[in-house]
Amino acid sequence: MTYCVALKLKAGLVMLSDTRTNAGVDNVSRFCKMFTWTNPGERAITIMTAGNLAVTQAVIAKLQEEIDDPNFQGETLLSAPSMSRVASLVGSYMQNVQHQWGGGVSAAAEMGATMILAGQRLGAPPRLFMIYSAGNYIEATDDTPFFQLGEFKYGKPIIDRVISVDSTIDDGVTACLLSMDSTIRSNLSVGMPLDLAVLPTDSFAFSERRRIEAEDPNFYAMSEAWSAALREAFIKMREAPKWS
Amino acid sequence: MTYCVALKLKAGLVMLSDTRTNAGVDNVSRFCKMFTWTNPGERAITIMTAGNLAVTQAVIAKLQEEIDDPNFQGETLLSAPSMSRVASLVGSYMQNVQHQWGGGVSAAAEMGATMILAGQRLGAPPRLFMIYSAGNYIEATDDTPFFQLGEFKYGKPIIDRVISVDSTIDDGVTACLLSMDSTIRSNLSVGMPLDLAVLPTDSFAFSERRRIEAEDPNFYAMSEAWSAALREAFIKMREAPKWS
Repeated sequence: MTYCVALKLKAGLVMLSDTRTNAGVDNVSRFCKMFTWTNPGERAITIMTAGNLAVTQAVIAKLQEEIDDPNFQGETLLSAPSMSRVASLVGSYMQNVQHQWGGGVSAAAEMGATMILAGQRLGAPPRLFMIYSAGNYIEATDDTPFFQLGEFKYGKPIIDRVISVDSTIDDGVTACLLSMDSTIRSNLSVGMPLDLAVLPTDSFAFSERRRIEAEDPNFYAMSEAWSAALREAFIKMREAPKWS
Repeated sequence: MTYCVALKLKAGLVMLSDTRTNAGVDNVSRFCKMFTWTNPGERAITIMTAGNLAVTQAVIAKLQEEIDDPNFQGETLLSAPSMSRVASLVGSYMQNVQHQWGGGVSAAAEMGATMILAGQRLGAPPRLFMIYSAGNYIEATDDTPFFQLGEFKYGKPIIDRVISVDSTIDDGVTACLLSMDSTIRSNLSVGMPLDLAVLPTDSFAFSERRRIEAEDPNFYAMSEAWSAALREAFIKMREAPKWS
C-alpha cells in the first residue's frame, strides 16, 4: 500500500508521500512515489502515485521521455498552457497504459492506479488534482483543500480537524507529517522514509524537496512530542463533561 | 458500514457500537448492533455485530430463542461452562446461517459478518473474542487488548496511543467515545446514536448499558472538548523540534 497526502492552502502546496510498496507482506520494497518538475520562475509540478507500480512508472516514464526529447512537438508537463491541461495529459497517459496492458492482467482491479497532481504555473493560482485509473480527474476546492492516496483513513481525522485553506505552510507540513506518523504506527504497509515537497504560492520553485529518513532525529522527536501532547490532551479529557 | 470497539482492560470490559446500517448511501437505516445478556452474579455477556444484517440477526435470534425455550436441553449463552464455549456456540450458529443461505447469495463476500463477544463468568477472568464468518474466532490478549469491527481505521490511532490493559474504565470509555467520534466525523456510514456497555471485572453485571443519542449534550461537549484539546496539542507542535 501507500500513503500520500497533498494540501492546497492559500499559502501554497504541501505534498508528502511514503516509499513502501508491497505485493503481499512478503514482498515489500522501497520506491519513490513523488516526482517533481520545475521550470524556475514559470512553473513547478509534483506528481504522487499509488496503486499498480508498473502502471504508474510507465506513466511517469512517458511524461519524462517527452520532456527529454528535443524533437517532441506535443504538449509536455512543462509546456502545457494550464494545470488542467497537465492533468489531462497525465490522465491520457494513464488511459493509454491501462489500455495497453489491461487486457493481459487477470483482474481489472490489479491495474488500478491513482495519482495526485499539484502545481502552479505563472499567471494562475496553485491547483491540486486527483487523477484516476480511467484517466479522469477531480480538482480540490476550498471546501476540501486536500487529497489523499492509499491508506488514507488512519490519517484523515487529524487533517479533518486541524487544516483549512487558511492554515500556514508550517502547520500544513506538521499536519501532513502527523497524519503520516499515525498511519505508519497503525499500518505496516506504509513506511519510512518519506518524501516531502513544499511549493509556496507564486514562488514557482520548491522551498522544500527532501527525503526524511527513518532515523531522522527531528521526525522522531516530532512523533514523540505529538504522542506526549495527545496523551496530555487525553488526560485533560478527565476534567471534561462526562458522558454519563 | 459499522464501527464497534471493545477493550479488555484489567479493570473490566468496555464495549461501544454505532447504529447505522447501509446498503448503498441511499439505503441507510438504524439498527442496534449491541446485545447483552446477564445472569446477575454469575455471568454477563455482550455481543456486537457487523456485516450482513440478515446473517447477524439470524444468529442473535437463534441464540435468544434457545435461552427462551424452557425445553431446550443444549448449551446456551447463559449455560455454557466457559466463555470460549460461548464463542464456539456463536461461531457454530454463524457457520449454520452461512451454510443455510450462502448458496443463494450471489457473492460469498455479501454474506460476510463478524462479531465481537465480550464477557465474564464466575470463576474465570473477563474474556474478549472476535468471531468470523467461518465461525472460527480469536481471543484478545494483553498485547493487543482491543478488537474493532467495521470502519476501524479512523479510530485506531487514538486507541493505539492511549490505551493499555492498565487503563482505567473511565479512560477506556473516553477513548472508545473519542475513537467513535473521529470515525463519525470522517465517515458517513458510521452514525449516532451509540450503544455503550461497561462490565467491571468480577461484577457480573453491567455498570453502564445505555444509548447515547445524537443530541446528547455531554457527548457533544466531550467531542468539542477533544477538538479543542487536539487543536491545542497541534499548536504546541509549533514549538516542537522542526522537521527541517
